[in-house]
Amino acid sequence: MGKLILFGNTLGEGGDHLFTLHYKQLISSLDGMIGESDRGARRFLAYFRDQLEKPIHHIPVALFRKKTDVSEINFLLEPIEAGQTWGYVSDAGWPCVADPGHLLVQRCRKKGIPVEACLGPSSIFYALVLSGFDGNRFAFNGYFPKEPVARKKEILRAQKESGVQIYIEAPYRNQATFESLLENLDEKRSLCIAKNLTLPSEEVITRTVASWRERGYRFEKEPVVFLF
Amino acid sequence: MGKLILFGNTLGEGGDHLFTLHYKQLISSLDGMIGESDRGARRFLAYFRDQLEKPIHHIPVALFRKKTDVSEINFLLEPIEAGQTWGYVSDAGWPCVADPGHLLVQRCRKKGIPVEACLGPSSIFYALVLSGFDGNRFAFNGYFPKEPVARKKEILRAQKESGVQIYIEAPYRNQATFESLLENLDEKRSLCIAKNLTLPSEEVITRTVASWRERGYRFEKEPVVFLF
Repeated sequence: MGKLILFGNTLGEGGDHLFTLHYKQLISSLDGMIGESDRGARRFLAYFRDQLEKPIHHIPVALFRKKTDVSEINFLLEPIEAGQTWGYVSDAGWPCVADPGHLLVQRCRKKGIPVEACLGPSSIFYALVLSGFDGNRFAFNGYFPKEPVARKKEILRAQKESGVQIYIEAPYRNQATFESLLENLDEKRSLCIAKNLTLPSEEVITRTVASWRERGYRFEKEPVVFLF
Repeated sequence: MGKLILFGNTLGEGGDHLFTLHYKQLISSLDGMIGESDRGARRFLAYFRDQLEKPIHHIPVALFRKKTDVSEINFLLEPIEAGQTWGYVSDAGWPCVADPGHLLVQRCRKKGIPVEACLGPSSIFYALVLSGFDGNRFAFNGYFPKEPVARKKEILRAQKESGVQIYIEAPYRNQATFESLLENLDEKRSLCIAKNLTLPSEEVITRTVASWRERGYRFEKEPVVFLF
């Protein structure tokens, strides 16, 4: 029996100083890689070009996307059951957090395949730690609903919960979501915007909603974590 | 103006292969360290013995504990305002998650002191990724209430929430909490027990409550994350 190793990816180009010393050892043991996208998996492997015995284009990359039929999981795990060590990597940040990797892990657990994790940076948790909010209790709620009325409803629901509420957003919806947060959150509530985390352009700002309303903010199409 | 750098600690002895390559650079720039305990901060610094110019016992360590009066935060930040670079490290895992570090970050934000994060392993997120549960939505709820009736109430409340529910527990209460989970969770619900994460004795088991009831489990006094 082989092994599945879950790898955390970088949060953007050139973030490989945030990989742990453990990565190198594990990467050099891989027989193949399962990726959320071919490009994402190859970009990840390329960070370790010097640690690998074979050229990175000779390492088989298998795809496992949200749209992949669940029945194909058995096929993906076949080489591992035959004794090989494969990795799984999502396109950015941690595996199994906003991607379908947990379905692979579930199946591995059912089949008795060992699973190991080797985690790097996560935008969600860099955001939490840097926000100044009390991290003793928090909820990650994924993406905001796309539809404005549903989004408003979600914001009003989350505002009533205890603990920090954390969301990610598709970059092209940042501005609309921000406006909706300013409209619907209590003016005394603190709202934190954390963008381009771990990158040179990282910015984390925490203000009250009243203060955000006064100053406003213009987003680029960039990765943002919203916390309140 | 100096800087506050938030460091993640290991989850146990010898976990320093999980530090990132970035740690070394940042550690060697430190003028001092704020710690949740003197022992925890010194143990952390000792990992970098070879990277530091001065003996680790010559690096000032200031304490910031749950019981520290909040009025002392200004005192702790004085050298940073005067231009120095200080670190903050909790006793295990991430800063600002189950320790008072967020109060330091809040004050820094108010004073305009730059804050940087350099994060290592987190038991909570290793547990989430390895559980096989769907990480698209989850809540970290801290410690279970100590008192049995309040604990039961909390379990029943959390069971109704959507998303994965995550808890840590004081090691000596693991067994009582586990029994209470088996008693109060729906028998079809999956319960994951993740212990000694990132250590050689790491174990992560996910089963239905019905199956746990049948097999039982004996805990040592060890760090456990409970997920359901």
